[in-house]
Amino acid sequence: MVGARREAHGVPVSPQLVEVITVGDELLLGFTVDTNGAFLAQRLAERGIAIARRTAVGDTIDDIVRAVEEALDRTGAVITTGGLGPTSDDVTRDAVAAVFDRELRVDEPHLQWMRERWQKRFHREMPESNRRQAMIPEGARKLDNKHGSAPGIFIEDETGRFVVMLPGVPRELRGMTEDTLLPLLGERGLATDTDVIISSTLRTTGIAESMLADKLSALHLAEGSSLAYLPGIDGVDLRITVRASDPGAAYLEIAEAAAFIRERVGDAIYGEDADDLARVVVDACRDQKINLSVAESCTGGMLGARITSVPGSSDIFVGGVIAYSNEAKVEQLGVSPASLKNHGAVSEQVVREMALGAQKKFGTELALAITGIAGPGGGTPEKPVGLIWICAAFGDGIKPLQMRSWGDREEIRYRAAQAAMELARRLIV
Amino acid sequence: MVGARREAHGVPVSPQLVEVITVGDELLLGFTVDTNGAFLAQRLAERGIAIARRTAVGDTIDDIVRAVEEALDRTGAVITTGGLGPTSDDVTRDAVAAVFDRELRVDEPHLQWMRERWQKRFHREMPESNRRQAMIPEGARKLDNKHGSAPGIFIEDETGRFVVMLPGVPRELRGMTEDTLLPLLGERGLATDTDVIISSTLRTTGIAESMLADKLSALHLAEGSSLAYLPGIDGVDLRITVRASDPGAAYLEIAEAAAFIRERVGDAIYGEDADDLARVVVDACRDQKINLSVAESCTGGMLGARITSVPGSSDIFVGGVIAYSNEAKVEQLGVSPASLKNHGAVSEQVVREMALGAQKKFGTELALAITGIAGPGGGTPEKPVGLIWICAAFGDGIKPLQMRSWGDREEIRYRAAQAAMELARRLIV
Repeated sequence: MVGARREAHGVPVSPQLVEVITVGDELLLGFTVDTNGAFLAQRLAERGIAIARRTAVGDTIDDIVRAVEEALDRTGAVITTGGLGPTSDDVTRDAVAAVFDRELRVDEPHLQWMRERWQKRFHREMPESNRRQAMIPEGARKLDNKHGSAPGIFIEDETGRFVVMLPGVPRELRGMTEDTLLPLLGERGLATDTDVIISSTLRTTGIAESMLADKLSALHLAEGSSLAYLPGIDGVDLRITVRASDPGAAYLEIAEAAAFIRERVGDAIYGEDADDLARVVVDACRDQKINLSVAESCTGGMLGARITSVPGSSDIFVGGVIAYSNEAKVEQLGVSPASLKNHGAVSEQVVREMALGAQKKFGTELALAITGIAGPGGGTPEKPVGLIWICAAFGDGIKPLQMRSWGDREEIRYRAAQAAMELARRLIV
Repeated sequence: MVGARREAHGVPVSPQLVEVITVGDELLLGFTVDTNGAFLAQRLAERGIAIARRTAVGDTIDDIVRAVEEALDRTGAVITTGGLGPTSDDVTRDAVAAVFDRELRVDEPHLQWMRERWQKRFHREMPESNRRQAMIPEGARKLDNKHGSAPGIFIEDETGRFVVMLPGVPRELRGMTEDTLLPLLGERGLATDTDVIISSTLRTTGIAESMLADKLSALHLAEGSSLAYLPGIDGVDLRITVRASDPGAAYLEIAEAAAFIRERVGDAIYGEDADDLARVVVDACRDQKINLSVAESCTGGMLGARITSVPGSSDIFVGGVIAYSNEAKVEQLGVSPASLKNHGAVSEQVVREMALGAQKKFGTELALAITGIAGPGGGTPEKPVGLIWICAAFGDGIKPLQMRSWGDREEIRYRAAQAAMELARRLIV
């Protein structure tokens, strides 16, 4: 039985099926990796909607028409992404209008809105080529796009078969999926509450995947549920996925698994789901009225950039020094030339002086410092590429830490900034 | 005529078409991003073979059968990836055998080889489940896989329609594409050395897509060639793709198109292909023996992080100040409290003083400063979210510039850092 086999792989049993068609020559030429498809698939799966098939076609009306017609024949529920832009190779709306045998009409209010947006944003007339983005097939519904200038479009025929057209720009697609697509599919009765797949992620950093696996080997989950180890640049995420007949049972199972995990590796867990370590640190500083400064060498500003990526970080973040050259370390942070000479720029002594220098200069309770060898050059047998010293000066205390980062230059730097924030978190949370 | 229209969108005219079907529930659930598809598309395009369509289906025999049958009907040339592993959900070979109405037979030499490999590599008996990987449809050809244990499979019918099955593990797929797939398609007359597709990208920033389109509307390309506008966070990339019978002709056409484009919008072009603006700026500074410092407010270190992402940036980059609070602007950069009071932190006056402050503090020839409103909060009607002032102090000169950035907080900041580097580039290149 097909249903039973699907179930074993975690695809919902329910026939809540849609197809996704991504439009763009760049996908067929391999210039772009299709991340939109994966994003959509995840968000839909979380709602119990399975994607029966994903198709990528080029920017050609005939090809799009054919793919949409076939998908409508198979499942009757189609989501397209891409091909809604202002240029002549953006032909998704033309193709889908042809499939439904509708004319394209200008949506005057949207055209007006676009013209005003151009005036406000670019201080000039909207180019006429952009007019295409206000074209909507007759009888179709315009879907607001708060994240860009092309609206999405919903169109259906008298038998209830429908196509939702969404833009291909990832930021716009993601925004519209949350704002518009998921509620719309809910309206259509496509989302289901009776057969749910729910997942929850615990985010760890500073601990290896194999160490986590050892510590969590005794975790027992019900049939159909799983724990996935997802190593990434931020650390290792632990994703618990459960499948249950109702949300209550699912959330209970997740809560039990999360409690088991927290008991064993709770120290390394800095957040859940989409939590960002920078936000966790900023929030903790705000709660405890701790202000913060940074002193960065190899990361060159990345730690400051991470912290200030959090809206409202100005409540607690004062500023920092990017001390890239040795002279800058001495002159701007008061690092002693003797320490640089005797221990080198990547050393416990220097990172301590950097943290203390920033703490004093900016008058903050907490200061974080980073110095390291990001590569690809500059490594030696004693101080290889990836060697990082981080340090937190916190009140009267000081906590230096050596770490080995890995990956390419950007990954090494990113992991160093992440480790510095984790050091701060463990000190203050 | 379909050919003529295709050509306008840059898809090859020649009927050298294949379809790619990727098999795996993980693709439909969004757990995996399909990088295999992009890789295959690139390698095939380089040989003059266009992918007419890419399809992703789950690990279900019925779904695979249907997708393969449809693709054979459309193009007669199909490549599948995935579903050749040892577990019960690896059913691609079963499905394709069914499409061609063939029985699966054990390939005894391959089974023997697998058994020996297990002994040698894992020092134990091969599990019986792996036996599946030695099953080949009757009349099909086994394709050696030097990179894993599942062989690829080539199968065709009496009319010449064929399917090539390849494994889904990216390393194996990549290896087999080079070793086996490309030579095999060559044998089939599909790969061609006389019909090449070559593309080249010119990278612009600080100019809108529609403005580029207006200025380049007179560009004429030969049949089968195209110019694509690819807006992204760095700016708008202009990708010229040409199709020609030999590489010499292709490169000549690219050179002519590039010359046309440079004549009209050359000011905005900072590089080609994968060039990074930070690297362009670092190289230009190095060439001209200019050293550099930064003063950052809303970007919080992002500009410094971009510049120091370039290996060897220490040759020219001295350091910077992240002056996030007003106090830090006054104390660390010497911004006058009166300027802050009278003009606000996001103003021409303050950004000028920030740039001059960094230039003096670090003793550099060039200093770049950024202050702005990154949002989401903090905007006013006079100073809305996205308003950015950037400034370059260069020798005795000073060049402030107001810009309007857009997107979410991170995008606004990224575009501000990009604009500051572009300001530097235009001053020194």
